[in-house]
Amino acid sequence: MPSPNEAACLRACHECAVACLQCATACLREPDPKPMAHCIALDLECADLCQLAVASIARGDEQVTAICTLCAQACSRCAAECGKHDMDHCKRCAEACKRCADACGAMSN
Amino acid sequence: MPSPNEAACLRACHECAVACLQCATACLREPDPKPMAHCIALDLECADLCQLAVASIARGDEQVTAICTLCAQACSRCAAECGKHDMDHCKRCAEACKRCADACGAMSN
Amino acid sequence: MPSPNEAACLRACHECAVACLQCATACLREPDPKPMAHCIALDLECADLCQLAVASIARGDEQVTAICTLCAQACSRCAAECGKHDMDHCKRCAEACKRCADACGAMSN
Amino acid sequence: MPSPNEAACLRACHECAVACLQCATACLREPDPKPMAHCIALDLECADLCQLAVASIARGDEQVTAICTLCAQACSRCAAECGKHDMDHCKRCAEACKRCADACGAMSN
Repeated sequence: MPSPNEAACLRACHECAVACLQCATACLREPDPKPMAHCIALDLECADLCQLAVASIARGDEQVTAICTLCAQACSRCAAECGKHDMDHCKRCAEACKRCADACGAMSN
Repeated sequence: MPSPNEAACLRACHECAVACLQCATACLREPDPKPMAHCIALDLECADLCQLAVASIARGDEQVTAICTLCAQACSRCAAECGKHDMDHCKRCAEACKRCADACGAMSN
Repeated sequence: MPSPNEAACLRACHECAVACLQCATACLREPDPKPMAHCIALDLECADLCQLAVASIARGDEQVTAICTLCAQACSRCAAECGKHDMDHCKRCAEACKRCADACGAMSN
Repeated sequence: MPSPNEAACLRACHECAVACLQCATACLREPDPKPMAHCIALDLECADLCQLAVASIARGDEQVTAICTLCAQACSRCAAECGKHDMDHCKRCAEACKRCADACGAMSN
């Protein structure tokens, strides 16, 4: 069974991956997606790392802490970029990224 | 925002992916993993399809329904195999697989 | 060891996944990415299915044929969309998608 | 277009992911998979990181160097474990892991 930290991180990583991919899709559907290009790129990188972290925690990988540390960095970058935009999908994504960065950070404690 | 069916499927796919990978790891740690080899193989296939389904639903992929249909089939196979074994990790995985098969099936309604 | 069909499909799926993600990134960097939004969405879906197909063939999954069939459909859709655009990254992606659709189709023969 | 280092790393990561998953499946099919349990676990972790590295290089992710560094570490661990075993699938996997560790290491130069 996962520890409380692991259980919280599994949930946060899942929610962050979903929020990032929803944000990327919504950004692409904006009338002018050009100003969102950086946001979309960070969304995709962050979502991939979050899904890897989910798998890694569930398997109990040897390098799970390092994976979560890297995931936390991707989350922080994505939160910073999404935080610059006013659209609801960016706000939701920034919040999910912040929560996930915290949960991933707690994995190394 | 995801529809109620999509939201339920996102959650079920995530929980199933985690349960499958936890089951695979626990099977490998059994004193004799040989009788669990088929279970482990189905766990890995199912987990990968569940994580693809999560990404596909979140992105709103064109082929999301077909992906969920395939995921439901993997879940049903994995549930059937896990259901043959008495270990807690197999029971939990079988339950998660059944719920995910149902949620994925509902995506094509 | 993989059969000749499997070896060809592993290579084609890898090259297609890479071409799709390179195309998506290049589309996002176009001066006006709006006309490329559909292309980007199909690139991401196709790349994910190609990477799943690689894993599935390598593992020898029970549902590998169905996964390759679905992957071939994503490749065909992506090839059709990329084929509408004149940029080099789209042309290269369309070619990789066509080769992958053929290789995935041969997996069910 | 990818640089020579990136092109070499894309190929090495793909070949390593495939070799790892083939090794895991072959280990599970051994008459007694128990002594292979650690090898299987490292195979799965390494394959996932290799597939992430492929996607990350192809997208040109901001954190691609850090991802490749982590991937190189997984490859080195997996090569060390596979190197302890005499089966052909382990030997092939150890070689692919060593090549991938080198190629991923060259990404940070």
